[in-house]
Amino acid sequence: MQGYHYPCFNVTSPIPDVCLVLVQSDRKLNTFTEAMRRDFRRLITRLSDDSQVRAIVIAGAGDHFTAGLDLQEAMKGPILSGVDRTIDPARKARINREYILDFQACVDVVERCVKPVITALHGLSYGLAIDLACCADMRICAANTRFCVKEIDIGIAADLGTLSRLPRMVGNASFVRDVCLTGREFSAQEAAQVGFVSYVEETRERAIDQAVEIAGQIAQKSPVAIQGTKDILNHARDHPVGESLRYTAVWNGAALQTQDVKEAMLSFRLRKMPTFEKL
Amino acid sequence: MQGYHYPCFNVTSPIPDVCLVLVQSDRKLNTFTEAMRRDFRRLITRLSDDSQVRAIVIAGAGDHFTAGLDLQEAMKGPILSGVDRTIDPARKARINREYILDFQACVDVVERCVKPVITALHGLSYGLAIDLACCADMRICAANTRFCVKEIDIGIAADLGTLSRLPRMVGNASFVRDVCLTGREFSAQEAAQVGFVSYVEETRERAIDQAVEIAGQIAQKSPVAIQGTKDILNHARDHPVGESLRYTAVWNGAALQTQDVKEAMLSFRLRKMPTFEKL
Amino acid sequence: MQGYHYPCFNVTSPIPDVCLVLVQSDRKLNTFTEAMRRDFRRLITRLSDDSQVRAIVIAGAGDHFTAGLDLQEAMKGPILSGVDRTIDPARKARINREYILDFQACVDVVERCVKPVITALHGLSYGLAIDLACCADMRICAANTRFCVKEIDIGIAADLGTLSRLPRMVGNASFVRDVCLTGREFSAQEAAQVGFVSYVEETRERAIDQAVEIAGQIAQKSPVAIQGTKDILNHARDHPVGESLRYTAVWNGAALQTQDVKEAMLSFRLRKMPTFEKL
Amino acid sequence: MQGYHYPCFNVTSPIPDVCLVLVQSDRKLNTFTEAMRRDFRRLITRLSDDSQVRAIVIAGAGDHFTAGLDLQEAMKGPILSGVDRTIDPARKARINREYILDFQACVDVVERCVKPVITALHGLSYGLAIDLACCADMRICAANTRFCVKEIDIGIAADLGTLSRLPRMVGNASFVRDVCLTGREFSAQEAAQVGFVSYVEETRERAIDQAVEIAGQIAQKSPVAIQGTKDILNHARDHPVGESLRYTAVWNGAALQTQDVKEAMLSFRLRKMPTFEKL
Amino acid sequence: MQGYHYPCFNVTSPIPDVCLVLVQSDRKLNTFTEAMRRDFRRLITRLSDDSQVRAIVIAGAGDHFTAGLDLQEAMKGPILSGVDRTIDPARKARINREYILDFQACVDVVERCVKPVITALHGLSYGLAIDLACCADMRICAANTRFCVKEIDIGIAADLGTLSRLPRMVGNASFVRDVCLTGREFSAQEAAQVGFVSYVEETRERAIDQAVEIAGQIAQKSPVAIQGTKDILNHARDHPVGESLRYTAVWNGAALQTQDVKEAMLSFRLRKMPTFEKL
Amino acid sequence: MQGYHYPCFNVTSPIPDVCLVLVQSDRKLNTFTEAMRRDFRRLITRLSDDSQVRAIVIAGAGDHFTAGLDLQEAMKGPILSGVDRTIDPARKARINREYILDFQACVDVVERCVKPVITALHGLSYGLAIDLACCADMRICAANTRFCVKEIDIGIAADLGTLSRLPRMVGNASFVRDVCLTGREFSAQEAAQVGFVSYVEETRERAIDQAVEIAGQIAQKSPVAIQGTKDILNHARDHPVGESLRYTAVWNGAALQTQDVKEAMLSFRLRKMPTFEKL
Repeated sequence: MQGYHYPCFNVTSPIPDVCLVLVQSDRKLNTFTEAMRRDFRRLITRLSDDSQVRAIVIAGAGDHFTAGLDLQEAMKGPILSGVDRTIDPARKARINREYILDFQACVDVVERCVKPVITALHGLSYGLAIDLACCADMRICAANTRFCVKEIDIGIAADLGTLSRLPRMVGNASFVRDVCLTGREFSAQEAAQVGFVSYVEETRERAIDQAVEIAGQIAQKSPVAIQGTKDILNHARDHPVGESLRYTAVWNGAALQTQDVKEAMLSFRLRKMPTFEKL
Repeated sequence: MQGYHYPCFNVTSPIPDVCLVLVQSDRKLNTFTEAMRRDFRRLITRLSDDSQVRAIVIAGAGDHFTAGLDLQEAMKGPILSGVDRTIDPARKARINREYILDFQACVDVVERCVKPVITALHGLSYGLAIDLACCADMRICAANTRFCVKEIDIGIAADLGTLSRLPRMVGNASFVRDVCLTGREFSAQEAAQVGFVSYVEETRERAIDQAVEIAGQIAQKSPVAIQGTKDILNHARDHPVGESLRYTAVWNGAALQTQDVKEAMLSFRLRKMPTFEKL
Repeated sequence: MQGYHYPCFNVTSPIPDVCLVLVQSDRKLNTFTEAMRRDFRRLITRLSDDSQVRAIVIAGAGDHFTAGLDLQEAMKGPILSGVDRTIDPARKARINREYILDFQACVDVVERCVKPVITALHGLSYGLAIDLACCADMRICAANTRFCVKEIDIGIAADLGTLSRLPRMVGNASFVRDVCLTGREFSAQEAAQVGFVSYVEETRERAIDQAVEIAGQIAQKSPVAIQGTKDILNHARDHPVGESLRYTAVWNGAALQTQDVKEAMLSFRLRKMPTFEKL
Repeated sequence: MQGYHYPCFNVTSPIPDVCLVLVQSDRKLNTFTEAMRRDFRRLITRLSDDSQVRAIVIAGAGDHFTAGLDLQEAMKGPILSGVDRTIDPARKARINREYILDFQACVDVVERCVKPVITALHGLSYGLAIDLACCADMRICAANTRFCVKEIDIGIAADLGTLSRLPRMVGNASFVRDVCLTGREFSAQEAAQVGFVSYVEETRERAIDQAVEIAGQIAQKSPVAIQGTKDILNHARDHPVGESLRYTAVWNGAALQTQDVKEAMLSFRLRKMPTFEKL
Repeated sequence: MQGYHYPCFNVTSPIPDVCLVLVQSDRKLNTFTEAMRRDFRRLITRLSDDSQVRAIVIAGAGDHFTAGLDLQEAMKGPILSGVDRTIDPARKARINREYILDFQACVDVVERCVKPVITALHGLSYGLAIDLACCADMRICAANTRFCVKEIDIGIAADLGTLSRLPRMVGNASFVRDVCLTGREFSAQEAAQVGFVSYVEETRERAIDQAVEIAGQIAQKSPVAIQGTKDILNHARDHPVGESLRYTAVWNGAALQTQDVKEAMLSFRLRKMPTFEKL
Repeated sequence: MQGYHYPCFNVTSPIPDVCLVLVQSDRKLNTFTEAMRRDFRRLITRLSDDSQVRAIVIAGAGDHFTAGLDLQEAMKGPILSGVDRTIDPARKARINREYILDFQACVDVVERCVKPVITALHGLSYGLAIDLACCADMRICAANTRFCVKEIDIGIAADLGTLSRLPRMVGNASFVRDVCLTGREFSAQEAAQVGFVSYVEETRERAIDQAVEIAGQIAQKSPVAIQGTKDILNHARDHPVGESLRYTAVWNGAALQTQDVKEAMLSFRLRKMPTFEKL
């Protein structure tokens, strides 16, 4: 796609209105560097505002979605470079806290993106891969995917979102604690069984194709309805049902005034494909 | 059952203390009209207060549970009749908002009903069918059921409860977003797999039989315990665990004073069936 | 383990840093007495504070995990001894309420324990067994386990936590209402399918072995990371994602300053097993 | 006003778009009967929907606003008629609970009314008077007003809203507990000092005049803006600031499209009084 | 009062059913030691359970209510004894956190006490004095009281409750931030003006007398109603109005069944003083 | 201050560690333009990160703090330029919503700023002035200040924060609704009485001096304690007390490890002024 130039993200539009973002790090195992997370934030924020885009697929280039944060680099950085006895622990805590909040915000953009985002995972999908996937609307994976909430193995409670989001996404609290506390790998099959992914495809290519196809279906719907559905689902996750219903009514007070309803109904009656104005 | 006369709802009592409500619209595909939703609200509200009734089954008459709202009628109504450029958008928003809140309340009665409600679905179960099923305590379906969160296809973010409730009921967030954003059908089998229904029966008749049988088991329990369990489960869904525990303790402060506990324990010791006073 | 002497709980350390608590009541079916629940509270509270212990397994001795509360005793107690017409209902309500809150706190210690707790269930696992299992971090069971939310059959809405916690732990709301309202048994297999347990083992011994092995893996991780992960997961269950993220950032502001991260990274590079100071 | 005929409520329109409701019970001290609370609910609900009305004043006829619930009648009713040892305490609890919820809903209509409501109090303003005043948007009183949270003196924790709302409305938690726990009277002056009322007028007539005048000012504003302000303030009371801001943005997404903004701005420039279409 | 022997708390019953607790530390300025906070927790917990007591007054012996925590002692303790560079900051954080939580619980007993608690303050009322006063139901002070949120001056964000509770108790957010951020003293008069205390008396003795008198009035009310009112007010502070109303209805479902209502009404009619059974 | 160059904001440091921001618009009545709100966001965000700054004062240059948003400009903009019948109301709603959210974020920076912010108001303080003041930690005003929640007069429910924050800041709900619904002015004296400002000074100069002096006192405290106090107070406003206490304990787990406590205590003993490292 024109104008989207980021060294480690390949941005294309395989079908109209759909954007495919391929993670292609310059590091081994497709790990994320500091520069990449900043670019990622900018990229997804721009796509959220780009009215040419109606649905987004995020996938990995090469053999792995991503093995997570680039530890080589991280170990030189301010957070993981080891204990510095000369710094005041309270002042160090502020540095850590703000670093984490900033990094969380880089991941959060996927959830905040007003268009639906589908992740297609494959190969190593460790640490940050899970954080990102948890922010996406849908998760599809290749049969060879190896998932892992890896943070526990470097002495860290995962702080980029997995512990906050994963328990609400799958229907097996015992599984969640298992993988978060032991740091064990889990397979595509297990991921499907517990409800973490909704489709397992044979290969990376097939997983991406499936993601793009679903994104294409979504892109053909009314963007007013699609963005409303995503926003209301995001809101519903964090609120009691009564509040969610009220919020929905206020939202649809405006949204139902769209021309798209008329267009959809007319097309339905005429058995033709509706066309919706961009949003 | 005596006194329950509604043109589009057939209300019977197949076994003692259990009420079976059959949806039988005068429209094609058993769709819901304005009049029906008003009657439905009155009917379920009355059943909630009727001490003769201890458990309720809702099912569809004919070939389909319901294909949802009657669009023919809706397109003539104030909400979906198209964009009226002469009305002030803010004033129109109020009309829409209040219409939605009122309709939500018509669906909500199933959740607010103090007795357990089981839905037995079959055939087309589109749109409003999902909203209703999400308010019920249990969901059973026939093998031929075709589920669909259809609203997206008419340019609307579903606003009668599905987006608010479905994500908390099944253990697969990716599936939820999939069916809500694509509007694709899903089968009885898939519904069972993701945890939306807990029994799939071969036919509509078998599904209703199974629902009535479970309703019958529930009707034989202490109504104090049953209604308390439903109320506490409703409350638990919308509150942190600590608050839910406190609420439960306050509730049971009174409920444990019931004669039913004594009756239940005595019957247990005498190996006879307990009989509980109505509530 | 030295110093842990409770008549009905056998406390051992099968492998380093792991504690195994066997419930061995002096009643039939391994039921819990008043004295036992008090001891249980003290025991788990002490284990939570014991820096020698890094993970805990709770299992049952004999043929059953537990059939729940000892009803023989309970029927003589102040709560279930029947209706006393001479006591003021409001004053009786206070007695009941405080009794329930106190009992809830006895169960709650498992959730509040700062170390991960795994339950290994087998045989009859009724009533209180479910309450306890819902507080644990992980659930493993033997193939012969017979689960039951039994309270409904003695005229009571379960008030020790099952109604509050179970719906958030499994991905099938219809199943939850089914077993809570009908009091029907469910099998190990069904428990696995709905996501209540994450491993089903052939026998009680194998279930305990598996639980101990996982506990052992957990015990080898950084206790700073493990306890942080448990605390953050507990917090996440009860809060919106945004709040959970902020809480996590504040938590890790201190936790990331641990030596354990350096130890973990160094060991990783040297391909040796890290050793972490106790916490 | 035409069509508003209720035996104990005198409904007039002292100035255009403003409705004045005078409580005139057929009991001593202007106490509320069962019939009155039902009528009150119907009346306020209708006024909320009546587009001729833009602001409402509620005041008392005669010497007192109201001394609260009519105890003579209440003592014959199902709730306060004394302890009935033959009824199951758990079943009695349900009757009480539903009675309270229904009565709360009768009071709640003032808060839910989409138009601003001002109460003008005078003379005895006991019990229910405080509940009602707490639901109103503004409180004005005559110098002779005698306020009292009276429920404690009949052995009851006030359950119609005062305990829920009063603490959020005044800036003195110690005062709130004082008057709720001792049931002591407090004067107009004290009410003004702690922030319970915002104007104290010399006489009942002056208090009503002042209320009507403010109502008149409100009635001249854009009803889109007025109703939005009330709804957002109601929402803000019960939500964290972040959620309130988001809700406001969604609400104003539609509301800012109103013609009223243009009319207001134009009038401002032309220094004339704007006229707003009804809502 | 018999059986209440604590070295630093003088426990008497100046009038029937009312308990007066005088803080009399063995340190200068009546400061709190570690031993005192433990005793305080035990004392108030016992008073909460003692059915002879219906209302409690807490005041200071000597010249000051309390200047807060005993810093001499605290500086030797694990928390404030200075930075220990040899301890792992994450492990130290756990020690701090658990210490704070334990101390918070010692203060919290005043709020959790089921009977109303009135504090009568005088002289220096610094730090912990504010924390304690914020947990009480009412605050009365002598004219010579010197209040101060002192923690900021020893480099600490106040963590025993003042920052959590004070903003909800007074109606001046600017004042709250002022005194919390500058650590400046404020007088009895200013405390009255912003709503922190509800009575200012000339002397310590008069303040205690006034507190005891109000406690005496409370002690003559129905304990069912009093304890219900306190519990519902505590709940209301932390919940939206809608939830508070529901909780109240569930609570009063049992509470309205008390004999006390009948006794209160009968006494009212006979113009005699009612007598209520203890609770 | 060096490096802070914004055309409409004069940024100086009147005393060490304190920053004074003077609003000096190029429009009449010191109104805010689009460019100004963007600059304001950048400016406050930078000050929040600037370790040279420990407390901030915001005041107005010239005769008025600000009369609010520049309506001349706003009427040409996308939001208030009048109803455009050609745009889809649902699409227009998104534009409005995102505009409001973005503007809210520009105001929000004051609340999010990690250092305390004091506003010193004078002259016209309309609309946006109230929004900004509500985000500040303290409010001081000159005797000539004329406050007004002006939005209602241009047909808008105030959406930049006043409706969300004001009710939690003052202790008079009736006053809040009065000024928000009538749009009437209120004086410095009334603002002081209801608790909106905590100091009224004779002139603008005196108000700024007082603000700077208090800021200076704050700047001399431990920045660890100051920033912790602000963060915990912000959190407390939006959370139940129990959660606030837990959050505080986690926060102070790190913060108590600061050297500042030792420095503060030592200085206290030596009766000298402590000096704290920047943060």
